[in-house]
Parts: sequence; C-alpha cells; structure tokens
Amino acid sequence: MAFDAIETPFGKTDKIVGGAATYAGLAASYFYDKVKIVAVVGDDFPQENIQEFNDHGIDTEGLQIKKGEKSFFWSGKYHNDMNTRDTLDTQLNVLLDFDPVVPPSYQSAEFLMLGNLDPKIQMSVIKQMTTRPKLIVMDTMNFWMEVAMPQLEAVLKEVDVLMLNDSEARQLSAQFSLVKAAKEILKMGPKYLIIKKGEHGALLFHKDQVFFAPALPLEDVFDPTGAGDTFAGGFMGHIGRTKDISFENMKTGIIVGSAMASFCVEKFGPERLKEITRADIDNRIQQFVDLVNFDIELV
Amino acid sequence: MAFDAIETPFGKTDKIVGGAATYAGLAASYFYDKVKIVAVVGDDFPQENIQEFNDHGIDTEGLQIKKGEKSFFWSGKYHNDMNTRDTLDTQLNVLLDFDPVVPPSYQSAEFLMLGNLDPKIQMSVIKQMTTRPKLIVMDTMNFWMEVAMPQLEAVLKEVDVLMLNDSEARQLSAQFSLVKAAKEILKMGPKYLIIKKGEHGALLFHKDQVFFAPALPLEDVFDPTGAGDTFAGGFMGHIGRTKDISFENMKTGIIVGSAMASFCVEKFGPERLKEITRADIDNRIQQFVDLVNFDIELV
Repeated sequence: MAFDAIETPFGKTDKIVGGAATYAGLAASYFYDKVKIVAVVGDDFPQENIQEFNDHGIDTEGLQIKKGEKSFFWSGKYHNDMNTRDTLDTQLNVLLDFDPVVPPSYQSAEFLMLGNLDPKIQMSVIKQMTTRPKLIVMDTMNFWMEVAMPQLEAVLKEVDVLMLNDSEARQLSAQFSLVKAAKEILKMGPKYLIIKKGEHGALLFHKDQVFFAPALPLEDVFDPTGAGDTFAGGFMGHIGRTKDISFENMKTGIIVGSAMASFCVEKFGPERLKEITRADIDNRIQQFVDLVNFDIELV
Repeated sequence: MAFDAIETPFGKTDKIVGGAATYAGLAASYFYDKVKIVAVVGDDFPQENIQEFNDHGIDTEGLQIKKGEKSFFWSGKYHNDMNTRDTLDTQLNVLLDFDPVVPPSYQSAEFLMLGNLDPKIQMSVIKQMTTRPKLIVMDTMNFWMEVAMPQLEAVLKEVDVLMLNDSEARQLSAQFSLVKAAKEILKMGPKYLIIKKGEHGALLFHKDQVFFAPALPLEDVFDPTGAGDTFAGGFMGHIGRTKDISFENMKTGIIVGSAMASFCVEKFGPERLKEITRADIDNRIQQFVDLVNFDIELV
C-alpha cells in the first residue's frame, strides 16, 4: 500500500493511494469475503483509506503503520501508447526495511498472493505460514531478476503460479518466443504461468496446455496504473470464492481478472474499483464471452 | 502474384513465389472450389507454379502473362521481433501498368477479395463486375493513404469489409484507440472492419459489435510473409463455402483465417500452405477453440 502520482495523456493526479495490495485487495473483495492484507505504510497514510478497505471487508490486521515514517511513493508519466512509462521519482521509505508479519488470525488462509516485492520479503511470508496454502501465486518484475536472481529463484521453487508481463517472461527465460519462455519458466518451479500482455490480453500455461484471454478493446485507457495488480486480485478472488485450483477454473479466473482490470484503467488510480457493482461486473464478463465466442459447428 | 526474397533470423531465401493472390488463393482453395484469380506476372514466372495453382483448383484464366516483362519483385529483411521489417528492394515491373481484366467466366462470382494494390486497380475490378458480388472485401496499406487517398476513399465506399493492420487503422482514422479508429473507419463506407494485429490476433468490428480472435501462440514464427493474405484467403474461403455473410459467420471465418495464417508462418513463403491436409486444419481450429474456451457458469 503506497502513494502514487500519475501523469497520463489524459491528465495528472497529486499523491493518490495505490500499491499492489490496494488494487489486488479491492478487486478480490468483490468475490471473496476473507481478503487479508500484509503490508506496510507510514503514519502519513490516511486512516479513512484504511477504513475504506475495511468497509470492503478487507482485513488490515497485517498492515503495519510505522510511526514517524513515510509510505512508499512512486511517481511516473505514461507515454502516448500507454504501454511504456517513465519513472519520475521513487521513494522507498517504509519499504526500505519492511519485515512482514503474518498475524496468527491469517494462518488458516488457503490462498496466498505475493505482490511484486523483494523476493526475500515474499519468502518470509511463505515461511511464516504454518500450513502451506492450497495455492501460492506470485508476481515479480525485471528489477529483481537483475539484483536478486538467486533469491528470486528460491521463491519460484515455492510457488504454484507465477504472474509476470511478456517482457519480464522473456528476460527471465532468455527466450523471445513466449511459448519457449513458458517452457523454460515452468522448469523453474511454478506449475502454472500467467503472462500478462497488457492491451493484448493474457496467456495461461500449464504443462502442454495454453489458454488465452483477450483484453477488452476500450475507447480510452485512462490510466493503466494498477491494472496488473487488479488482474491478480480478480483472479485470486475468483479462486478464493470457488476454492477450485484446477486449470479449467484458472481460465475463468483469468477472465474475471481481465474484467476487473478493464474497469481499473477507466479512471485514475483505484477510483473505478471502488464504485463498480456486481451488475457492472456481470455485464463486463458477458462482454468477454461475446468478444471471443464463435460457432465452431460452422467450420 | 510475384517473387519475394526473404531474410528472417532463421535464414534466407532466393527468389520464391509470393504475392497476395498466391497466399490468399492457396488458403481459400482448402475451403472453396471456385477460387479465381485476377493478377499479372511476367514471362519469368514459372509455368509449374501456375500448374500448381490449377492443381489446387484455382482458376487462372484472369492471370495475364506479359511477354518480355518481369514479375513484381520484393525483397525484405525481418527484425528479431518479426513484427517489423526493412524493404531491401522493390521492382514494380509488370505492376507498373497493370490493367486488370475480369474474364466473362468470372462474372458470376459471389464473393470478391481485392488484394492490396493501387485503389484505381481495385476500383477497376469492382466496375467490371456486371452483377455486384454479395460481399466485397478489400485489403490496403499505409502507402495508398499517403499517395492516393481520394482514390482509396472512393473504393472504401464500394466495399463491405475492409481489412488492415493496427498501424494502418490508426493512420487511416487519425485515432490511436482501435475502438475509436473502428468507429471512424466504419463511417467511410465498409460495414465491417477487420483489424489485424499480427501475433496479437485480429478484431472484427460491425456497428457496436466486436469480436476478437487470438493468434495461436507458436514456438517459432519462421517467416511472417504472406500471413495477412493467407488470413484473408482463409476468411474468404470460409465465406465462400458457407455462402453466409452474417456477423456470426464472419467470426468463424476469422478463426479459419487465423488458423491458416498460423500454418503460413511455419515455413518460408507459401511452402507450408501447399502441404497441409484437411485433418491438419481441423486440428488447428480445435486448438483455437481450446485456446479461448472457458466456463462462464463458474463465474
């Protein structure tokens, strides 16, 4: 949980609340009523935002509030194509020495999502779970491949599902073809791999199986910040609600995640994620069905 | 119909047979037994290749063979990502003053595909048809937007379906968002718009409806030359076979086109298109079904 200041071709924001736990937590809360967050903020983080998470049924017992310290801050500017961005400022602040603590009340958690952070922190959370969750999903990014590859490899051996974007999959595997990249990455530990391609959709790989979910074609992508975390949250929320970790159900989870991500980009920050209704979500998922559905009998 | 010399990261070819009519004709011939070609070559074009088309059931009565002239020649080199290429050489030769002649035996044609050429040539073919075909589909490219926009706009008013790639759609509409681009282009004449996104699939727009077909994730794209024309040929072949020009059937046509394109890129030039079987095609189409199929009941 953090602060972001975002500039896109459509406008710019002051410091607004962001961070993977914010996006993933809000997205998951529409499907699952036992979302629990482990995170850290400074005492500059507004109490009303924490209350907002609680109002969404999100348990914040694992949220550390560091007195006299500041929350993580990121500032960035998106280019016209919205696929690339420049980082203008990064202030690690409380993340500099984040030592996550999993509260005893979280120990029964069946599903664990590790947001993109230092692999040491991800490993610490896994090790604190006295019973291994049924499904451990992790996100990561190119930075950790460059500065903490041995630690990243150790975490990869402990997780079931890895999520990353296409350029990160290419970097991690040293393969340009995403099919070849997937084969290499599936040897590193995860049994499932989700490659996020932004506006070009997402791929799920498992053994020799592959599933593709499109992104919804939108008139405008207003702000892509948090779309990947929102996707992860929608996916986890669906898995949590159904308690089904089969490949077939993960496919549906990816559609749910894609639908949630399509809302996220419609406004700045997590704003849109706070106002949607279950009916909005059902309509959006139906749009995904219509988008890809064709009559095979005609072929 | 033409000659290409192609260089990709996987190797290079000498002069091989190519051209939109070659790729589209071969692809369509797997579905439709009345494929007829209007094209021009020089007398350097091998008779055995013309015989090969005839063996595929393709009528070449409308193929002009210009004595003492040379066929169109293009040479290009693909970059590592296979999405961009440099043109090394273009020799227009017989295309310089191509005056297409539609033979009387072609007059009953119900479906007309206009390959990417000077819009004047495309218009000439439309005007020669005494009965308007049930469906006229056209391809074009950025070059004609730059040098022949009024002529291109005139042809757009006469066609039912326009096919182009994403950057061409953006250029034609002056819109970055493909959804907005589609809205603008559908005002220019075509009732249906197909935007090809290469390895990222294809979109079909009609009124407020949209359909998305993924490209098959492949281990290697060996040579993308002709993939767009092969896609068009598969689409037209399916429409021709079913004689159904509804939006629903066009969706299936796009899957058929995508399946054919996925074969095309597996070898240099049209080589792979000559050797596949109906069983190969059925298996490939089933892969597309598996790729996008998910269980909505679980949501």
